[in-house]
Amino acid sequence: MTYCCGILVRDGIVMIGDTRTNAGLDNISTFRKLHLFEEPGKRVMALASAGNLSVSQTVVSLLSEGIENLETGERERLTDAPTMFQAAQRVGRAVRMVHDSDSKFMENADISFDVSFLLGGQVEGRRLRLFMIYAAGNFIECTTDSPYLQIGEHKYGKPILDRAVNYETDIYDALKIGLISMDSTMRSNLAVGLPIDMAVIRRDALNIELNYRIMPGEPYFTDLRERWSAALRAAHIAIPRPPYATRPVESLPNDGIDTVLPRTGAHANAANAQLTAGQPPAKVLQQQNPKR
Amino acid sequence: MTYCCGILVRDGIVMIGDTRTNAGLDNISTFRKLHLFEEPGKRVMALASAGNLSVSQTVVSLLSEGIENLETGERERLTDAPTMFQAAQRVGRAVRMVHDSDSKFMENADISFDVSFLLGGQVEGRRLRLFMIYAAGNFIECTTDSPYLQIGEHKYGKPILDRAVNYETDIYDALKIGLISMDSTMRSNLAVGLPIDMAVIRRDALNIELNYRIMPGEPYFTDLRERWSAALRAAHIAIPRPPYATRPVESLPNDGIDTVLPRTGAHANAANAQLTAGQPPAKVLQQQNPKR
Repeated sequence: MTYCCGILVRDGIVMIGDTRTNAGLDNISTFRKLHLFEEPGKRVMALASAGNLSVSQTVVSLLSEGIENLETGERERLTDAPTMFQAAQRVGRAVRMVHDSDSKFMENADISFDVSFLLGGQVEGRRLRLFMIYAAGNFIECTTDSPYLQIGEHKYGKPILDRAVNYETDIYDALKIGLISMDSTMRSNLAVGLPIDMAVIRRDALNIELNYRIMPGEPYFTDLRERWSAALRAAHIAIPRPPYATRPVESLPNDGIDTVLPRTGAHANAANAQLTAGQPPAKVLQQQNPKR
Repeated sequence: MTYCCGILVRDGIVMIGDTRTNAGLDNISTFRKLHLFEEPGKRVMALASAGNLSVSQTVVSLLSEGIENLETGERERLTDAPTMFQAAQRVGRAVRMVHDSDSKFMENADISFDVSFLLGGQVEGRRLRLFMIYAAGNFIECTTDSPYLQIGEHKYGKPILDRAVNYETDIYDALKIGLISMDSTMRSNLAVGLPIDMAVIRRDALNIELNYRIMPGEPYFTDLRERWSAALRAAHIAIPRPPYATRPVESLPNDGIDTVLPRTGAHANAANAQLTAGQPPAKVLQQQNPKR
């Protein structure tokens, strides 16, 4: 498994990726999934991958060696793409080439063709852009409304991004929130793990401003994890307990509750009461509506 | 989609379930997924369902009408099971009956046979128990080490349960944490939604202590959501920004970074640099290790 996220804010792009790969839980390795390409002043790109490692590696190799353009006869590499849009198209074409060559054999072995990429960066004179490329080679672009994209195990780390990031967020705050998102993912999915690679690409700077790997025990990330845990604990403790009181159910009005029992159409609790037919009748439970 | 969770603490069991069903995003309905059965002083059960609604409804109907035991000839209903273990077995048998009768036809229509249940409760003279029953009819039991079980869209709501609940948690704190877990799920997955049904079953009380439905706008839950949001916001703001400084990359030592490029075996950044072969060489990026 993998977790990578890319965050696009006014100041630039943050890319974060873990490094854990697994072929079963008994075969865990470390592979870099975040690839950085920089020609200062000319172009800067960050490519993060998730999915089957053989597929993502082959895609990266194809993008490195270049793919022949059948119309022009030229070999097109990722990094000589004239725009980020065309760079994303090249990633998609490489994915489709690997699909054409490998997917049947993988399916025969019951392995699904599963890969996805985040591609962020900027070419001189062009906009900073962030894309997500799917296993079919099609892709979407990140916009200011939802200023992040995720690949791999995205669910555990999504709530904090939804709540905390917007397009105006400071770029190092975005990095921090991305690390909290990574922490949430690592806590719940063992297949996502340290080291964590990250990159910061500032808009119009046309270089990699930060290229850093967090190793186990790294002080800032350790402190972030502890602070976040303590804050969550304090947060739920500070919320009052539910005020829903125990009440004699008979005294309450019969609210219409939808039932899943298809043939009765009756009130759910009446329907439930049928389950004890032939026995002393079960007490019919009503919905309680205590006032706060 | 659905999200239901059951939490087992020393004081008892909390069960929470949403009510949203959808057949595509353009066809959303409300169905009760949390079914309560009570014969005070004798037995109490809560059954929550996730998955294909036709399957879960049919299972509940079979458990209501009773399934013939081929050995004894008796019709066995969920609520006359002599123990919770046997009640869980009955749910499993009902799931298998529906699988036998419906799964082929569903597969022909490209619909997967997808269902799961949480069953919690207690029979007089027996232990309070909480089970999760799978689509194959097999099941697991909740224990004190990980004192909760989830069905449906479980990932968004899992981090808070992992962090905040243990077996000694007060039962109404467990209910509160379950509601935070539900809130996290609803924020990230539109297919989980209000109203929310909940039940509290106190150990050895043999009744439903609380049976409550949260409707949209309900004051306590609205307040809980706002407090949780504000606390998360405060929590991430209180964490310092990453100290990883921008540094001239040339001055740093060449750290060994694993590469996904299969044929070179070389340093990732050296390999990345190949991508610009034939052009002015890209600057080789090194890992930065600033001290805090």
